[in-house]
Amino acid sequence: MSDRFEVLATCGPARAGLLRTSHGVVETPVFMPVGTQATVKSLSSGDLEALGARIILGNTYHLAMRPGHELISGLGGLHEFMAWPGAILTDSGGFQVFSQSGRRTIDEDGVTFQSHVDGSTQRLTPESAMAIQAALGSDIAMAFDECPPSDAEPPVLAKAMERTTRWARRCLAAEPAVGQMRFGIVQGGTSLPLREAHLGEIAAMAFEGLALGGLSVGEPPEVMHEVVAHVAPRMPAERPRYLMGVGRPQDILAGIGAGIDMFDCVMPTRNARNGHLFVAQGHLNIANTRYRDDRRPVDEACPCEACRRYSRGYLSHLFRAKEILYYRLATLHNLQYYLNIVRDARQAIIEGRFPSYAAAQSAPMAVGE
Amino acid sequence: MSDRFEVLATCGPARAGLLRTSHGVVETPVFMPVGTQATVKSLSSGDLEALGARIILGNTYHLAMRPGHELISGLGGLHEFMAWPGAILTDSGGFQVFSQSGRRTIDEDGVTFQSHVDGSTQRLTPESAMAIQAALGSDIAMAFDECPPSDAEPPVLAKAMERTTRWARRCLAAEPAVGQMRFGIVQGGTSLPLREAHLGEIAAMAFEGLALGGLSVGEPPEVMHEVVAHVAPRMPAERPRYLMGVGRPQDILAGIGAGIDMFDCVMPTRNARNGHLFVAQGHLNIANTRYRDDRRPVDEACPCEACRRYSRGYLSHLFRAKEILYYRLATLHNLQYYLNIVRDARQAIIEGRFPSYAAAQSAPMAVGE
Repeated sequence: MSDRFEVLATCGPARAGLLRTSHGVVETPVFMPVGTQATVKSLSSGDLEALGARIILGNTYHLAMRPGHELISGLGGLHEFMAWPGAILTDSGGFQVFSQSGRRTIDEDGVTFQSHVDGSTQRLTPESAMAIQAALGSDIAMAFDECPPSDAEPPVLAKAMERTTRWARRCLAAEPAVGQMRFGIVQGGTSLPLREAHLGEIAAMAFEGLALGGLSVGEPPEVMHEVVAHVAPRMPAERPRYLMGVGRPQDILAGIGAGIDMFDCVMPTRNARNGHLFVAQGHLNIANTRYRDDRRPVDEACPCEACRRYSRGYLSHLFRAKEILYYRLATLHNLQYYLNIVRDARQAIIEGRFPSYAAAQSAPMAVGE
Repeated sequence: MSDRFEVLATCGPARAGLLRTSHGVVETPVFMPVGTQATVKSLSSGDLEALGARIILGNTYHLAMRPGHELISGLGGLHEFMAWPGAILTDSGGFQVFSQSGRRTIDEDGVTFQSHVDGSTQRLTPESAMAIQAALGSDIAMAFDECPPSDAEPPVLAKAMERTTRWARRCLAAEPAVGQMRFGIVQGGTSLPLREAHLGEIAAMAFEGLALGGLSVGEPPEVMHEVVAHVAPRMPAERPRYLMGVGRPQDILAGIGAGIDMFDCVMPTRNARNGHLFVAQGHLNIANTRYRDDRRPVDEACPCEACRRYSRGYLSHLFRAKEILYYRLATLHNLQYYLNIVRDARQAIIEGRFPSYAAAQSAPMAVGE
């Protein structure tokens, strides 16, 4: 596994590294835009290249339900299907399936649930989750884990951890796609002892990377930061560390500060569609009437197409008129923001000034003017 | 007016020319993509440049209702607002307002109607329609005309023509924007004598171009072709001729064959969003299940981003999943198709082989495989 990941520099617990995938070398820390249904919503693969994204996330559950992994496999795999030359990490589908509380039943072998597309009864097991990811041909496949609710009591958490460990062994026994890495997932809720214990179990297995799951699922951000700050430095240093589904810019900076290498979150893309645009030290809501006649770009310093070419006034109009173009321009901007802060964080780590960079970025969020 | 428009070559009644606008020289015949609300739906101005579009249409009614022409004017005019360096023709708003039957009242001075955005009572007159277009700063402003229903009887048509003539004089008396051309509109329904009569009135005025309005509003295509074939060659040769709101590819080729220089239509963009994609000699409906696993591009010969990079299978998936990216890719393709047939028609005119080109293109529409 050491030939796949390399730490080039550290700054306290924070690290700058390289992750060598079958579809290119990814500089870490890295933010992975979420491409749920074989597209990062509103963007083309060319848009993602122009943004400088090198790795994106695909959702196994959604792709298996529609258009189906066999179909994607028949069309050459997920990379060819969506014409994306960079790397792809696929989740295991577990998170989506477990989120369907009331509509799914769990047993030791796997989970039975209903498709959100056509209501049909479907089943996911560690073996099938890995087989789907192999068919999709992602560069990194995630183990199929049991995701307990955020407010689960320690006995429930412990049972989910134990099952996740048994399922992790089954995931590793499955055949990956050629060149596909597999990452294990550490559960344990917000309990530091449980997290440490589960980390010990998962780290003992031959996963090429380790992830923290079950965070950013409703707990207070400070609690999440505390867990990450405690657990991340204890994760094996020679393997990439991935904090799943996180988060706000300040959460990502806190994660990097704790030694996390990889992040994904729908926040930049979803918020963009809702009118929430990130700017230096804060955000602006494009629905606010003050932007209707504002000649300035969303962010003077941003190199994205939306900021280089259009005014806040124009974006305000497109948002109000529900024009399709709004969603693309806003998504381009928010993803550029996320990619930039992580890229700048990497440079700050290499130059040994990460704490001051993070402090400057994490100043209290203010509404941009 | 002769310095603005030049016929370079003819091939029978068909002509290839140059239209010099304040925002670039436009090669004619030309198809103008429709940018109703300051965006060609789903596309950025950069997308339009990449397609090779040189002139687009903006809708005075929609822009006046939202975001308002004063606001656009305050932000530097429509070109700067939407960051479009090419030419813009604005319609007068008449067509939209007259389409609101039952919700508008017409008098000699103008039309009172209700805004579709907020239901407020609004009024459009020849003077205000021209003032709005001057505020928008379009390169070509259309006269405010009375658009009778397609099934109007000759007396109704005649009255609409007479009023359109009186309004045309008032439009010309209004102050245009600097460098703005003004086009008059010829009405007369499908009556050849009425069309000839009205053409005589409008052509006698100092409009820099002349348009045929009130066609493609429900009459059979053969009837429309007959009117165009009769009237277009009678329009002054030294001024550009614009067939408003037309049409299908074969309608445009028929128009070019009759000597029309300019076209606009929502067909390529609207059909794209509905899954209807144009291909050589026909079209395909991307909703058809046969395309789900089709590795081929929509059209092998098409240079658009959708065809260069993606398969029918991928577009089929995006369409079924209602992904925003679908609308952009499909729109890029259909507009590329329209722009290409008109560009190729121009080349065919210059090379003296337009009839054979048009015949080859106008073969019976077949569903592309």
